[in-house]
Amino acid sequence: MFALLENIRVVLVGTSHPGNIGGAARAMKNMGLAQLVLVDPQDFPSADADARASGASDILQAAQVVGTLEEALIGCRLVLGTSARDRHIPWPMLEPRECGVAACEQAQQGAQVALVFGREYAGLTNDELQRCHFHVHIPSDPAFSSLNLAAAVQVLAYEVRMAWLAAQEQPAKPVPVVEQDEEPVTADELESFYRHLEQALVEIRFLDPDKPRHLMSRLRRLYGRSAVNNLEMNILRGILTETIKAARGEHLRQEKADV
Amino acid sequence: MFALLENIRVVLVGTSHPGNIGGAARAMKNMGLAQLVLVDPQDFPSADADARASGASDILQAAQVVGTLEEALIGCRLVLGTSARDRHIPWPMLEPRECGVAACEQAQQGAQVALVFGREYAGLTNDELQRCHFHVHIPSDPAFSSLNLAAAVQVLAYEVRMAWLAAQEQPAKPVPVVEQDEEPVTADELESFYRHLEQALVEIRFLDPDKPRHLMSRLRRLYGRSAVNNLEMNILRGILTETIKAARGEHLRQEKADV
Repeated sequence: MFALLENIRVVLVGTSHPGNIGGAARAMKNMGLAQLVLVDPQDFPSADADARASGASDILQAAQVVGTLEEALIGCRLVLGTSARDRHIPWPMLEPRECGVAACEQAQQGAQVALVFGREYAGLTNDELQRCHFHVHIPSDPAFSSLNLAAAVQVLAYEVRMAWLAAQEQPAKPVPVVEQDEEPVTADELESFYRHLEQALVEIRFLDPDKPRHLMSRLRRLYGRSAVNNLEMNILRGILTETIKAARGEHLRQEKADV
Repeated sequence: MFALLENIRVVLVGTSHPGNIGGAARAMKNMGLAQLVLVDPQDFPSADADARASGASDILQAAQVVGTLEEALIGCRLVLGTSARDRHIPWPMLEPRECGVAACEQAQQGAQVALVFGREYAGLTNDELQRCHFHVHIPSDPAFSSLNLAAAVQVLAYEVRMAWLAAQEQPAKPVPVVEQDEEPVTADELESFYRHLEQALVEIRFLDPDKPRHLMSRLRRLYGRSAVNNLEMNILRGILTETIKAARGEHLRQEKADV
């Protein structure tokens, strides 16, 4: 049954203070989580991290350090990013409690899930936030809203554990047998798709790379919440490939060659 | 409406690390709580506390420092103490979520509420735990169950805030008009009662001070969860006074004098 929690990783992006990494590791271990991924930490490994981890140093030792958020999310089917509430483009939001339930449900079906936390002072960039399927806001006093990083990890890990404990008490839902075609694509597959989509939109001159506006953001929000499956992704990718060919006139040349 | 949260105090008992006091203050302020009471802190005020408070130093400056838990609880009608699950005498337990709801309900009715947190390594003593009406256990992995102090404050303060936000969304329940007689007694009044009760039990030789066993604990558990009101307390105290008189034979002497 713990297998479920093993599918849930905590991703800390650009952390400044190693003490917060240690505090996050301790909070994770208290709540039964073990997978920690650090994106470009400023100071790690560190004695401060070990001190604050206080018995959870196994999690620090097993932590994966990567250079970009994209690498940290490889293989993830659900990506939940912590965020302040007001953003330029409103994104699908979850409460911490809903976040715990959603993470457990996906993990129970064998999907990899990421809980993503931003920098101590600056949070996640807009680009990083747009790689998340949902944003999670921890309700806090608007007059003093910024939680300590390890405290934020504590709250979400606690809600994951509460959802996990509640699921233990219920008769296990039969895990639906999902054909590979029907499985949602992973975060990295979605990123490849966005790059392909963007390229296609530039080629057809719908997107001006010098004035991109919020076009890609809006498209990311749409596909990000749609749980696109493998079959649908193949179709979308096929459309893009053909669109680009068409934009380059290759379609016409191909027709000529066919004649 | 914030008045409600102002009735809820956080009590930290015998804290070793001032950084944890600062972290607790920040977690409180994030969640809209402001009243911090420190029982016999080892190192306070402290630069470490200020550093970890990070913007919540107003809460540290306003913190009340007292010598005993009893002083910290003066005036409180509901006392909730954090505890590991297994104790010699099982006590009425609340989940953190129930704790948030109970604290808000009492605070809304104008009662003072205390959330009590123990020492980093040793928690609360049995004596301190028995001053609490309910114990709260934060569900954690049994293999690594001890949360950082500030993280524990974060979880309970978060549940208080969630309950408070939920209460805002519902039409306000009319606050029942409670006669003074019907108001539950405060924690300090209950302590005086226990002293009186213990004295009476010794006088009637029901309690052997050299072999007290768990008698007082069991009585504390009973009265602690019963929300004894002022009228009932007056009755109980009257019974004790008369019991002691009787045990000393004063009753007989009085009767003689009356003759």
